[in-house]
Amino acid sequence: MLVSRKIHPQDTIIDVGGVKIGGDEIIIMAGPCSVENFEQLHETAESVKNSGAKILRGGAFKPRTSPYDFQGLGKEGLKLLREVADEFNLKVVTEIVDKDDLELVEKYADILQVGSRSMQNFQLLKALGKSSKPVLLKRGLSATISEWLNAAEYILAGGNSQVIFCERGIRTFETYTRNTLDLSAVAAIKELSHLPIIVDPSHGTGRRKMIAPMSKAAIASGADGLIIEVHPHPEVALSDGVQSITRDDFKNLMTDLVSVANAIGKKI
Amino acid sequence: MLVSRKIHPQDTIIDVGGVKIGGDEIIIMAGPCSVENFEQLHETAESVKNSGAKILRGGAFKPRTSPYDFQGLGKEGLKLLREVADEFNLKVVTEIVDKDDLELVEKYADILQVGSRSMQNFQLLKALGKSSKPVLLKRGLSATISEWLNAAEYILAGGNSQVIFCERGIRTFETYTRNTLDLSAVAAIKELSHLPIIVDPSHGTGRRKMIAPMSKAAIASGADGLIIEVHPHPEVALSDGVQSITRDDFKNLMTDLVSVANAIGKKI
Amino acid sequence: MLVSRKIHPQDTIIDVGGVKIGGDEIIIMAGPCSVENFEQLHETAESVKNSGAKILRGGAFKPRTSPYDFQGLGKEGLKLLREVADEFNLKVVTEIVDKDDLELVEKYADILQVGSRSMQNFQLLKALGKSSKPVLLKRGLSATISEWLNAAEYILAGGNSQVIFCERGIRTFETYTRNTLDLSAVAAIKELSHLPIIVDPSHGTGRRKMIAPMSKAAIASGADGLIIEVHPHPEVALSDGVQSITRDDFKNLMTDLVSVANAIGKKI
Amino acid sequence: MLVSRKIHPQDTIIDVGGVKIGGDEIIIMAGPCSVENFEQLHETAESVKNSGAKILRGGAFKPRTSPYDFQGLGKEGLKLLREVADEFNLKVVTEIVDKDDLELVEKYADILQVGSRSMQNFQLLKALGKSSKPVLLKRGLSATISEWLNAAEYILAGGNSQVIFCERGIRTFETYTRNTLDLSAVAAIKELSHLPIIVDPSHGTGRRKMIAPMSKAAIASGADGLIIEVHPHPEVALSDGVQSITRDDFKNLMTDLVSVANAIGKKI
Repeated sequence: MLVSRKIHPQDTIIDVGGVKIGGDEIIIMAGPCSVENFEQLHETAESVKNSGAKILRGGAFKPRTSPYDFQGLGKEGLKLLREVADEFNLKVVTEIVDKDDLELVEKYADILQVGSRSMQNFQLLKALGKSSKPVLLKRGLSATISEWLNAAEYILAGGNSQVIFCERGIRTFETYTRNTLDLSAVAAIKELSHLPIIVDPSHGTGRRKMIAPMSKAAIASGADGLIIEVHPHPEVALSDGVQSITRDDFKNLMTDLVSVANAIGKKI
Repeated sequence: MLVSRKIHPQDTIIDVGGVKIGGDEIIIMAGPCSVENFEQLHETAESVKNSGAKILRGGAFKPRTSPYDFQGLGKEGLKLLREVADEFNLKVVTEIVDKDDLELVEKYADILQVGSRSMQNFQLLKALGKSSKPVLLKRGLSATISEWLNAAEYILAGGNSQVIFCERGIRTFETYTRNTLDLSAVAAIKELSHLPIIVDPSHGTGRRKMIAPMSKAAIASGADGLIIEVHPHPEVALSDGVQSITRDDFKNLMTDLVSVANAIGKKI
Repeated sequence: MLVSRKIHPQDTIIDVGGVKIGGDEIIIMAGPCSVENFEQLHETAESVKNSGAKILRGGAFKPRTSPYDFQGLGKEGLKLLREVADEFNLKVVTEIVDKDDLELVEKYADILQVGSRSMQNFQLLKALGKSSKPVLLKRGLSATISEWLNAAEYILAGGNSQVIFCERGIRTFETYTRNTLDLSAVAAIKELSHLPIIVDPSHGTGRRKMIAPMSKAAIASGADGLIIEVHPHPEVALSDGVQSITRDDFKNLMTDLVSVANAIGKKI
Repeated sequence: MLVSRKIHPQDTIIDVGGVKIGGDEIIIMAGPCSVENFEQLHETAESVKNSGAKILRGGAFKPRTSPYDFQGLGKEGLKLLREVADEFNLKVVTEIVDKDDLELVEKYADILQVGSRSMQNFQLLKALGKSSKPVLLKRGLSATISEWLNAAEYILAGGNSQVIFCERGIRTFETYTRNTLDLSAVAAIKELSHLPIIVDPSHGTGRRKMIAPMSKAAIASGADGLIIEVHPHPEVALSDGVQSITRDDFKNLMTDLVSVANAIGKKI
């Protein structure tokens, strides 16, 4: 397989307009779950930039369990992401849920995110194989390591070798956490593949208080980065407020993460 | 929710060109995992028809874990399905994996199947909400009952109220079976929704010897039908041979199923 | 292994004082979760006997998640079970949680039950290997089929070959049901072992409305019997009221079960 | 509950003959899965002591899936543990599987380990509630956080408040790892309880190469210690060789762990 470390022993480093993922710098992506409006995004972006984040996250197209839930701002959200990111010299990562949106999302985003529910949407994966943009491939809700690697293989087989894995928790019997964050997946991907892997502690735990300890653990486990939900006012967020941290929490967390990164010979 | 029994207390019966699903007749769908060629499909169709099946199953578009596995015959497979089904007066159920294929699949199939990996492909669900054909909605690999009902809600909210649920096994720690067939999902759907539900013992167990006992159990649990993989020569099948039964096995099974159906006041 | 069908091809039939488990008669065990008092047990026993049950179930020693929950009546409960069962010519099955209680429980019970939490209590299994009484071995909360067979092997290796398996649901991500009842385990045990297997739909689903459909399904899947929680007043039960059915529900269920049993060539 | 942080806000520090668990020093327990003979244990103990371990682990009573597997040296193993530990000024942690062995194990061990399979062996827990020795309570194979806390509560309710939790991986659908190590359990226990928690990356992953990254992650997540399987010759170990690391691997790991511990304000 093209994703295998056996045929590509050295680490692949993915260059997102100068931000390099997979090397000795740990890259932090942060922002709200959903783009809600200019002010919310602007406040968040300014703050996470100052705290050290390099990439702005935010959902414009939201896959939601119920058809009656907020489905995202769509194109308007993409425009806001680009505008705000550019102001603060941030890159943009956002989810694509429909291959028909590829040209549109490519226009505004720097990294195209494939969500958990789409990990085996093979038509989307094939379309992304033709894209020139890096892809953030989240692990499916109950995807094995092997299935995840094969999903990435669809993208590489199509011609796009810029895939970043993202562990975001798996389904287990435990109900205290929203999902069970499987950090051993970081070690597994590092062993089996040359591609980088980041961790999403926000969806991975679903609990605000766990973001800090699991972020530190993710970096110590060897992850190349983190993607964290930050909201200026989590209590009124249109989605995932319970797992979003405040801008101050994020700032404090970044200080701690620098220490952990240094301890394992990396930097942030 | 539109799928809820609370707002629609009586059972919904879905009429597939005269074949009624959800009433007191149990409907059996049978055929190969993948449509491979005319002879394979013709032999299978003739046999399952004679044994009592009403609907021919067969994959033309196959979602496969690896990009290098057989991906199905595509449009050619759809034509074969229609041609052979018509010869034996069977209806056709086949999977749709891409909303762009909707017009094409609608032309050849009587029931549009949504596979497990697509259960939360909301773009596909929305497109199917505009279709005039019934939809067979398989449960996701680790979908809760609640998420499954919400996936159906996407289709009903779009205007298509002809949804048939299909329990096909969930992911658990057990490795003896391919999946764990959750027959309590039949009782749950019957309690919570007015829509019919069938069971797929082939994917649900992944083991040929388990098809008979689990088919009988499914009917006893209240399922409105079954979808079973039958192959004239399972040992050379291009996909899922290990869980396909022979035409003779299917014939014998149908005899047993009639007894179980009668025992609970239904017919086949 | 001694439990393997390979070295013992024919079915083992276990004789519990004339009640034979594993043959062509399906044996129903019924009674309250916990023995609470004489009246509760007497009312239940009389009713389930009249409806066709052969064995009275009831917990005297209760393994409870919290140390502050009702732990059972102990020896007093055992005496009540024996007294009431004898009055109605029923056999007694009850749980043993401590090997030190072996002599005591053997004195009052006809079948010694090993609960899910004790399936790999190897000291208890070894002690039961020296008993002359049949053992009902419940599947562990997350035990694989292989581990379950090995647990039984501990008992057989000790000299006691009278083991009855009991599927009671496994831990999965689904929260609608208390556990996920795995009826494919019945087919698996029948294929791999010569020993009988029964099903517990009460713990397996945790929901009163599911007892009837899953009981029918269990019999259709090939189970040799059922163990069902029946309580004269489920709403005031000291444990598991939510999954207990009334005496009338049980009576109606038995009528249905006879039909299903007959349909597969068995009797009740 | 007595285990709750609500009624006991400050961290409990457990003193094992001067080795303090739960404070700002991270305690490393290391040694072979099973005590096999003097030489194996002596070589291991000398090495792990020199590398910084404070407590010697080793199984004398081994709970094994099959009755035909090596069950441990029993009392002879306990004596070897004590003798070798004393020579190197180490403390001893070893598993107790039978409450009848309590006096014996207490005589030779400093910490009494309750294995995963015994987490809800309530008789054993009640017996340990009467012991004066600290208890290492491993999480059950599919135990929820709530059940785990309740298991500890059995011990505290009996009068022994010296309980150390140990996360060792849970059962999930993933087969690449032996279990899925749930580091979010560390954060959960720290939030809900005042008692210390350590992590077992050896059983938690079942793969030698994952021990180092997951050990670092465990410390970064806030764990108070680690318990690691070290064997002088993993390839000939009588049990768990595939997940044991060599003495050299352990030495190198300890150097890395010191850095991670310092990064979060702790020491080793």
